[in-house]
Amino acid sequence: MLTVNAIAATSATDPLVRTTIQRRDLGPRDVLIEIRYAGICHSDIHTVRGEWGEVPYPLTVGHEIVGQVTEVGAEVSKHAVGDRVGVGCMVNSCRECDNCKAGQEQYCLNGNTGTYASVDADGTITQGGYSTHVVVDEDFVLRVPVSIPYEKAAPLLCAGITTYSPLSHWKAGPGTKVAVVGMGGLGHMAVKIAAAMGAEVTVLSQTLGKKDDGLAFGARDYHATSDPATFEALRNGFDLIINTVSAPIDMAAYLGLLRLDGTLVSVGAPPQPLPVPVFALFGNRRSFAGSSIGGIAETQEMLDFCAERGIAPEVEVIGADAVNEAYERVLKSDVRYRFVIDVDSLR
Amino acid sequence: MLTVNAIAATSATDPLVRTTIQRRDLGPRDVLIEIRYAGICHSDIHTVRGEWGEVPYPLTVGHEIVGQVTEVGAEVSKHAVGDRVGVGCMVNSCRECDNCKAGQEQYCLNGNTGTYASVDADGTITQGGYSTHVVVDEDFVLRVPVSIPYEKAAPLLCAGITTYSPLSHWKAGPGTKVAVVGMGGLGHMAVKIAAAMGAEVTVLSQTLGKKDDGLAFGARDYHATSDPATFEALRNGFDLIINTVSAPIDMAAYLGLLRLDGTLVSVGAPPQPLPVPVFALFGNRRSFAGSSIGGIAETQEMLDFCAERGIAPEVEVIGADAVNEAYERVLKSDVRYRFVIDVDSLR
Repeated sequence: MLTVNAIAATSATDPLVRTTIQRRDLGPRDVLIEIRYAGICHSDIHTVRGEWGEVPYPLTVGHEIVGQVTEVGAEVSKHAVGDRVGVGCMVNSCRECDNCKAGQEQYCLNGNTGTYASVDADGTITQGGYSTHVVVDEDFVLRVPVSIPYEKAAPLLCAGITTYSPLSHWKAGPGTKVAVVGMGGLGHMAVKIAAAMGAEVTVLSQTLGKKDDGLAFGARDYHATSDPATFEALRNGFDLIINTVSAPIDMAAYLGLLRLDGTLVSVGAPPQPLPVPVFALFGNRRSFAGSSIGGIAETQEMLDFCAERGIAPEVEVIGADAVNEAYERVLKSDVRYRFVIDVDSLR
Repeated sequence: MLTVNAIAATSATDPLVRTTIQRRDLGPRDVLIEIRYAGICHSDIHTVRGEWGEVPYPLTVGHEIVGQVTEVGAEVSKHAVGDRVGVGCMVNSCRECDNCKAGQEQYCLNGNTGTYASVDADGTITQGGYSTHVVVDEDFVLRVPVSIPYEKAAPLLCAGITTYSPLSHWKAGPGTKVAVVGMGGLGHMAVKIAAAMGAEVTVLSQTLGKKDDGLAFGARDYHATSDPATFEALRNGFDLIINTVSAPIDMAAYLGLLRLDGTLVSVGAPPQPLPVPVFALFGNRRSFAGSSIGGIAETQEMLDFCAERGIAPEVEVIGADAVNEAYERVLKSDVRYRFVIDVDSLR
């Protein structure tokens, strides 16, 4: 067992604190990673505050992890000491169900093992990336291309793949019109990736406050959703809408923006069910879908795509002691566009 | 102008009564049809009772119309006197929008002209098929194959195409598992058509009361939705669910029945929005979609498919004076499976 420095939540209401956690001894197929940066995802906040169900406190969160391999198990063949690697939202899956066999481990029918707050094979609770080291099965470790700086690679492991996967699955590309709802951590990546795929991208944000950024990231157009005229002007206009907002939205208004056979994909989820007027789905044979991160092979594809196209998130690097303040700023949407913890500050 | 016998609703609460209505003089591209049978669709009842909005009383409903051509306009080329023909839910569309150009007149962006209760090109209100004759633009008149008896052809024009279109669009066929929710007029056609397409069909009905029928229509399996064990046993099991029920359903339970990339398509619509838990869409990357009848070319394709495969609805033929009673029986689900009015009783 390895005792490593970390930050942990001890209750739904107390601030996160410095602590130490245990990492398992390396199994034959395990990789030991010295973590360099860990991104802060809104999911981390939902989780530690108990908004998504029971929490096994104390808990270390973080599922946007990058670092360097410092040791490998005897049978490891995919990664070597010194490699630049990443870990996202899951660290294992059953590998036997239809979905795992199809490379869609994120939809493992037996439930994949989350990077934190999941029960691991050995019965312990998995602990996330706000920590100096992590031990992960090599099959769930990604290669981080050398052209992506460590701190910018971290958010790709969740915000990147969460937006890349639906854009790829629903075929964003030349000739398609894509709207991105929300310009936060996920939204700004959706804009960059969709534009790089060749789609014509429109941002739908509450205000025009980030319009210059949106256009710089590759959007062709930018509209305020606080203006009802937006929904009139853009009616029947999009093939695909990626909704990154986890607050409830007016489904009739947003579905009305879809053209024939268009799909609105939610990647953010409000805790309450969304009221969907079925008549709004009848028009243009519209669909409302969900998408959850991506498979391991697809995550690697996304990292390689971003490296090749020079795409990376906008990040604000913080020290470990600024995490609680960063959480407050995330909740106020006061971040452009992703906080990343410099894990050297934990050593 | 032609004055013809018909049945009309005069208010949301009074019974339908015999009356006469006007049909326009034949334009150069119009077809005069002597109606033989008209199906009774649940939509007719929703409409005349004012449940779907303002009604221009007096109104003759009916959009499952079959009969014989008795006169054609000077420029008509698609139909000839004596032809067996049908008319469904629409009698015109703009023909200029992207959807019309794509043969999807049902999704006309300028709003197609409904067979009843729509404003026609001449400013009059369209009147439906509970009537001895109708005049329709030839482009919205379908050819009814000779192997389908008139009375069985009528329900194909709405119940048939409404289920055929999503089954075809979402690719029901060999190797796919399809569930049909509800065993009414639409549901029983969905079972027959999906089975003929080669899909493995399961019926989900409130009780097992129509199980023998369902299996005879081609279903492989039949489950009661009143039994919670159904939702456990069938979890993650279907590629496609066709929901023909217009009452609200428990979306989390039904979405849970979809496997990877599965879609639940509603063809019936409750008047109230349906609460959709977004987390249920995340699992298996599920979709919730709507579908509305089908295009004209697709409706012809459906009629030809049914003729070729020997598929037809189960009907109960009634006289014009039994319509009010039939409405009450439809509302009690006391029909196997579609009432069809013998329009000779109106002459």
